[in-house]
Amino acid sequence: MTVASSTRHFLGLREVSRDRLIGLLESAASMLPIVRGEAAPLDMLSGRTIANIFLENSTRTRVSFTMAAQRLGAQSIDLLAASSSQSKGESLLDTARNVEAMGVDAMVLRCSASGGAHMLAQHVQCPVINGGDGTCEHPTQGLLDMLAWTNSLATLDLSGRTLGIVGDVLHSRVARSAAYAASCLGSDVVFIGPPAMVPESVQGLLEGLEGAGRGSLRIAHDLDATLPQLDAAMMLRVQFERGAELTGDYAGMFGMNSERAQSLPSHAVILHPGPINRGIELDDATADGDRSLILDQVTCGVAARMAVLAEQLGRHI
Amino acid sequence: MTVASSTRHFLGLREVSRDRLIGLLESAASMLPIVRGEAAPLDMLSGRTIANIFLENSTRTRVSFTMAAQRLGAQSIDLLAASSSQSKGESLLDTARNVEAMGVDAMVLRCSASGGAHMLAQHVQCPVINGGDGTCEHPTQGLLDMLAWTNSLATLDLSGRTLGIVGDVLHSRVARSAAYAASCLGSDVVFIGPPAMVPESVQGLLEGLEGAGRGSLRIAHDLDATLPQLDAAMMLRVQFERGAELTGDYAGMFGMNSERAQSLPSHAVILHPGPINRGIELDDATADGDRSLILDQVTCGVAARMAVLAEQLGRHI
Amino acid sequence: MTVASSTRHFLGLREVSRDRLIGLLESAASMLPIVRGEAAPLDMLSGRTIANIFLENSTRTRVSFTMAAQRLGAQSIDLLAASSSQSKGESLLDTARNVEAMGVDAMVLRCSASGGAHMLAQHVQCPVINGGDGTCEHPTQGLLDMLAWTNSLATLDLSGRTLGIVGDVLHSRVARSAAYAASCLGSDVVFIGPPAMVPESVQGLLEGLEGAGRGSLRIAHDLDATLPQLDAAMMLRVQFERGAELTGDYAGMFGMNSERAQSLPSHAVILHPGPINRGIELDDATADGDRSLILDQVTCGVAARMAVLAEQLGRHI
Repeated sequence: MTVASSTRHFLGLREVSRDRLIGLLESAASMLPIVRGEAAPLDMLSGRTIANIFLENSTRTRVSFTMAAQRLGAQSIDLLAASSSQSKGESLLDTARNVEAMGVDAMVLRCSASGGAHMLAQHVQCPVINGGDGTCEHPTQGLLDMLAWTNSLATLDLSGRTLGIVGDVLHSRVARSAAYAASCLGSDVVFIGPPAMVPESVQGLLEGLEGAGRGSLRIAHDLDATLPQLDAAMMLRVQFERGAELTGDYAGMFGMNSERAQSLPSHAVILHPGPINRGIELDDATADGDRSLILDQVTCGVAARMAVLAEQLGRHI
Repeated sequence: MTVASSTRHFLGLREVSRDRLIGLLESAASMLPIVRGEAAPLDMLSGRTIANIFLENSTRTRVSFTMAAQRLGAQSIDLLAASSSQSKGESLLDTARNVEAMGVDAMVLRCSASGGAHMLAQHVQCPVINGGDGTCEHPTQGLLDMLAWTNSLATLDLSGRTLGIVGDVLHSRVARSAAYAASCLGSDVVFIGPPAMVPESVQGLLEGLEGAGRGSLRIAHDLDATLPQLDAAMMLRVQFERGAELTGDYAGMFGMNSERAQSLPSHAVILHPGPINRGIELDDATADGDRSLILDQVTCGVAARMAVLAEQLGRHI
Repeated sequence: MTVASSTRHFLGLREVSRDRLIGLLESAASMLPIVRGEAAPLDMLSGRTIANIFLENSTRTRVSFTMAAQRLGAQSIDLLAASSSQSKGESLLDTARNVEAMGVDAMVLRCSASGGAHMLAQHVQCPVINGGDGTCEHPTQGLLDMLAWTNSLATLDLSGRTLGIVGDVLHSRVARSAAYAASCLGSDVVFIGPPAMVPESVQGLLEGLEGAGRGSLRIAHDLDATLPQLDAAMMLRVQFERGAELTGDYAGMFGMNSERAQSLPSHAVILHPGPINRGIELDDATADGDRSLILDQVTCGVAARMAVLAEQLGRHI
């Protein structure tokens, strides 16, 4: 597989090369002043159109891709589940082939089926960007998480550091993409949660992945005992809208709060993919506190998606 | 409070200064040829993005803001209640902070909570434009109402004139914003409706407001007796979609029709914020007749919103 | 009726002149390289805004118009049934007048009422484009169908050829618009389906239409007996979303499949307006096979709508 083909589409971070990941992060970092309004938007993708095919509702991710497209001079078109031809019984594949035939330049797919974006990429010619597929990956989220963290550190080298990912790892594409990317950059990763959410099976997620200097993965069930070892704590969202139910005192055992945050090293940062369930994953003080990178993540999200769109479409110009 | 700070955000007309109001109306009037297609669109806000956060449904106002943004070269992004992260339980404040972190340049908020836009303005850095908040204010509507009326008069000085506002004043943000603005420009205002819709309490709406040459406010319960005193009759919309129920013969007592319009002075004009319930607030003949400014109001709406966007964003360039 | 007035609006193909139809097809053909990404987008309609008023759901047609507008440099605004002022009880006419008063440059109307676009065109000044009205016409669909077919033939002269239209012709605006256009270009047309879907009454659809060299119309109830006579087979969509119910073995009697396709002349092509009900109107092999023009039709749809927008708006520049 040549570099060219391996960077066609943006489907996942599991097997991303360190070179590509660092290139994307450097590109994304260069976009940050534009997102912050400190530099003028680009017209790199003027005349291009991105299709947002969102079979799962996600205003946040969709708006972020739309902002990213606009800041590069491109336009976007939304195809949402509720109002699309899918409601007339058309398959995803037929919808995608039709959208491609209309001349869109790239498509972002958000869907509940793991592997949906990979499937699409085998059947359309234009770049496919995975906007979150089932419990598999959410690679632009992983990219923005790494951008926010590395930006706060002022280095892209995460060797010797540890990322804790707290919550329902078993069902989380956010956890997977972050773990792949952090490990690729050298960070160790520890999944933290009750056994039902962090079973032994997730221990094997990084197995077989190559790359020099890759960080290790382990699991833990006691948040308080693990906090002192973390350089970054990523609190996963409890996805009530997908039927998540909490048993026991989740906030008490696995929620971040002011008291617990004192067990973190003083330099450690806190991440959350949003939207926050305040009082569950985080209390107000930690969500809005000095070490929270949560709004930085949102800003980094637009920059990361600009970098992905530029990678996928910019070279064809 | 300096001029600069008092013109940050566009939240309401209650305490707007006469200078600012006249400046906005003059700016809006200069935008009218663009809206009418008689002059080329501007690129004053090229590269800027406006977020329409509409927690209440209002296609009319949202499309008007979108047209206004486009005619200034800006783009817009819609966040609608039904499909937003609010459906995942996120608070308005978290939604707004996230949208701001994505780099939007201004946000328009439409919400059912009185004071919603004011609250937002205290927590975000970018300009907040009130697109209608509960029963409090709908300031761009008040601005467009004044633009349509003053444009028909060819003067911005309303002293010695009387605006009648007919209908459910008690629950109407449209009535409030129009009354504040008309009074500021010197017009007397009379609220007209049955006691349940125009109670004594609304008599005090302008109390405590400052400004030289401000018009007075009074209430009346007999439309027919009041018509000969009006220079403009603003018929309020009966908001069935918010549970309004009519008792008695509303159209007969407080609706405008051809016969009743003859009691208006010959120069008097008729306004309505739309959408019209034909046969209730107005019959077809008066809605579509020569003295109706209703479609002018719609055109003025885009111009007024262009003026507000230019005021809020143009100076930062 | 002068040429100028007869080409104001784009309401239907029933009485379109051969000159206008050929002009639109030539214009659309010149747009195809842009849609395919082989040529740069145009800025012919820069600063213009198209309103998509879709009272019936149709993502496919709406996105196609949006892409067409964008490729010409224009912007679009969507007014969808579910979220529009129509849900506040406003009439279509009031909605349209309001949208026009906001300064949109053209409006596309999709509605379930036959004649809706014609009605609108009598009451607004800006160009009205029929995006499908009841069972009457879908003229941009007819245009794209002819573009796809004539493009595959490399001629705009269809004399001596036969178009078969298969399915529920009685309720199909797609069938009507295609029949009008094909006949205008000289093609014979045969409607094929069971008597309930292709009654004697549809035989008269072309009666009274003028134009030299116009093709004839006939009906048939036996698909297999008719296939050898066809140069193009247009399979109509079974519109389950509009309550269509199939009786008997529809796919077996009127569906296209590999075996049946062998009865077509070797040069014959297959069309379908999409979205396909796979296994009903077409099997996978014929839908995706070499003689299928279905994805070409989608590409041609954007080009055809660009031609219509350019015709309606380009001359005013």
